Amino acid sequence: METELPTIFSAKRTSYVRTSVIREILKLTVENSDILSFAGGLPNPSLFPKEVLSSVMESVIQNNCSTALQYGDSSGYEPLRIQIAETLTDLPWVSSSSISITHGSQQGLDILGKIFMDSDTNVLLEDPVYLGALQAFSPYHPNFFSVPMEPDGPNLYWLEEILSQNKIHVFYANPSYQNPSTYTWSLEKRVKIANLLDTKEIIFIEDEAYRYLDFEGKVYPSVSSFRKRNDLTFVLGSFSKIVSPGFRLGWVQIPDPYKNLFTAVKQGNDLNSNQFSQVVVSKLLEEMDFQTHLRSIQSFYQDKKDNLVSLLGKYLPEAKFSHPEGGMFLWVEYPKVSSKELMRRCLENGVAMVPGSEFSPASRSSSFFRMNFSFLSDETMEVGVKRIAEVYRDINT
Amino acid sequence: METELPTIFSAKRTSYVRTSVIREILKLTVENSDILSFAGGLPNPSLFPKEVLSSVMESVIQNNCSTALQYGDSSGYEPLRIQIAETLTDLPWVSSSSISITHGSQQGLDILGKIFMDSDTNVLLEDPVYLGALQAFSPYHPNFFSVPMEPDGPNLYWLEEILSQNKIHVFYANPSYQNPSTYTWSLEKRVKIANLLDTKEIIFIEDEAYRYLDFEGKVYPSVSSFRKRNDLTFVLGSFSKIVSPGFRLGWVQIPDPYKNLFTAVKQGNDLNSNQFSQVVVSKLLEEMDFQTHLRSIQSFYQDKKDNLVSLLGKYLPEAKFSHPEGGMFLWVEYPKVSSKELMRRCLENGVAMVPGSEFSPASRSSSFFRMNFSFLSDETMEVGVKRIAEVYRDINT
Repeated sequence: METELPTIFSAKRTSYVRTSVIREILKLTVENSDILSFAGGLPNPSLFPKEVLSSVMESVIQNNCSTALQYGDSSGYEPLRIQIAETLTDLPWVSSSSISITHGSQQGLDILGKIFMDSDTNVLLEDPVYLGALQAFSPYHPNFFSVPMEPDGPNLYWLEEILSQNKIHVFYANPSYQNPSTYTWSLEKRVKIANLLDTKEIIFIEDEAYRYLDFEGKVYPSVSSFRKRNDLTFVLGSFSKIVSPGFRLGWVQIPDPYKNLFTAVKQGNDLNSNQFSQVVVSKLLEEMDFQTHLRSIQSFYQDKKDNLVSLLGKYLPEAKFSHPEGGMFLWVEYPKVSSKELMRRCLENGVAMVPGSEFSPASRSSSFFRMNFSFLSDETMEVGVKRIAEVYRDINT
Repeated sequence: METELPTIFSAKRTSYVRTSVIREILKLTVENSDILSFAGGLPNPSLFPKEVLSSVMESVIQNNCSTALQYGDSSGYEPLRIQIAETLTDLPWVSSSSISITHGSQQGLDILGKIFMDSDTNVLLEDPVYLGALQAFSPYHPNFFSVPMEPDGPNLYWLEEILSQNKIHVFYANPSYQNPSTYTWSLEKRVKIANLLDTKEIIFIEDEAYRYLDFEGKVYPSVSSFRKRNDLTFVLGSFSKIVSPGFRLGWVQIPDPYKNLFTAVKQGNDLNSNQFSQVVVSKLLEEMDFQTHLRSIQSFYQDKKDNLVSLLGKYLPEAKFSHPEGGMFLWVEYPKVSSKELMRRCLENGVAMVPGSEFSPASRSSSFFRMNFSFLSDETMEVGVKRIAEVYRDINT
């Protein structure tokens, strides 16, 4: 959904700015607590590491105040960069100096958009694509291309077609538990596509915000780790899903030639990331048993997913979806209805989902909806699915 | 200082990206603690409200965890927006819904640059100008114009000349205790210029990051408060100088016609501001005696300023400067030396200042230096001034 063209004085790029239906719905559900929302991508608050947080905070205030409350390095707090480089990346060339900490991985997308995208830059996206990337990239107004996705990754025939017929400069993808589809690239496709990207000298922006949300605790090697051209590959990560979105911290692994430019752009954007949150998250990673914490998130989300799957089976057998390996969404097809009508009627009936049209640069109509399962309790989820079923039946008869 | 043109694949705008000599020096001084730095703009850590912070943190973790650790509204945490609207603004039309909380006021500058500046946008700046604004605006590559500054504000003759000969779209200024000059617009000039801006229908970006740093506790009415065209005026504020830069929070007062656009751009930039910091700062404002806290900052900085003034009088009577009413800098002219040489030799001699050339879009040479007095202790400040005097004499004989 693009905003209407501003009738006010503003730069040309503002006519390409996109609003987010998700954030609108989020606001709606905050204002009206009767709406049960499958629309957000909110982690479940019961998974926040509250106990250890309390002692970490106290220790930061007693011992690290003059660092935590001050301005900081534009690239990020060094101890946290070291922790990320050592435990949360898999690129052989990565060291702390190639990590830049960002204000959520969303800021990484904005900075990379600013660095790479002009009106003559050809940018390949997955179809469907993460809406936040569209919001970050659109104001820079590149030419978007889209490759159709399958449950195990991009359709290779189409990918090769697109790459052979166009000079693609940048490929943005979300290979693990993608938002919105939750599709995950197979190991085989990761290797093949890494080679293709090398051959065609394409800059790859690999968004790994969901990397650690596999239900079984599996971690796929990043696509970038298979690339020879490590000067052309960026990997984005996030603490939002594995610690808390409240600290608004992500990171980007930046190849050498782009380090200075990235830092200079980051400075112009906001000088540096939130220093207090960086010190706290760094201490948290030291103090908590991170692997156990991850496993508890993973199995909690698995149970949530199983619950939504069985509810849909029970009340809405017409709904079609493939079973994800991880993440926080089901990508559900509701056949034989107008998705706009389904969305509108659902909201009237006190339940929200995100229509698939939001996840395409041209807002192409789609019979899919993104359904989040991480946030609602099992009971409200059942009420929510019943409400959708009611509306669906009502439209379909 | 502009970065060298990237020889790597990148968008055209990256050739306009500016690095910050201040941030480079900051990094240098962190790596080499022997360098005494007058270069930064760091608040003194002894002024951070540590005592009350500790109890506020505990209360947030016990009572507000599911809000503080979650994603939040793109415009900001509502209770904090209400506090800002009620106590930290002076525009009659401002309500919480016209406040957007940003990741430092620097992010406000980036977003307004994105919203307003194309290559055919004429942007008027103060000369000298805040370096961070140059960093934020430059990648959008507007045409910069500069109006010469006097200790009581812009030179009116030149301002009228520029406005009569050019269609200026946007005027960015920092009317109170400006960074770097610490010049402060007089009440008379505020009224006059507000009228001029109305007549010429110019968008005004009023950066009030230093608003509360008057040594005597005085607060000037904002220039925007004198405007009739309240649809064309933005006022930026910051918690960095009055609470702590570690929470990385600022805000923008946004006129009605631009609210939705600002929020949509903010979403693309980073979804929302740091929710944890917003909840903490909101509680802090509730719990602490804010006026007493402000007074202690103001009188502390006054003492620091007096100290630097007397040290310069004692060791470097050749140095010329006007006495600021507030802020954290002296804007000092060192006559009869090459400022490049002075800067280089100072760094070699273990002391840092920022050369005036940094505060001009064209990096025009200048005999001024920005000297911060908020951070160094009285003793190290004396050592620092002696080192500068030594170098200055050495060059000058």
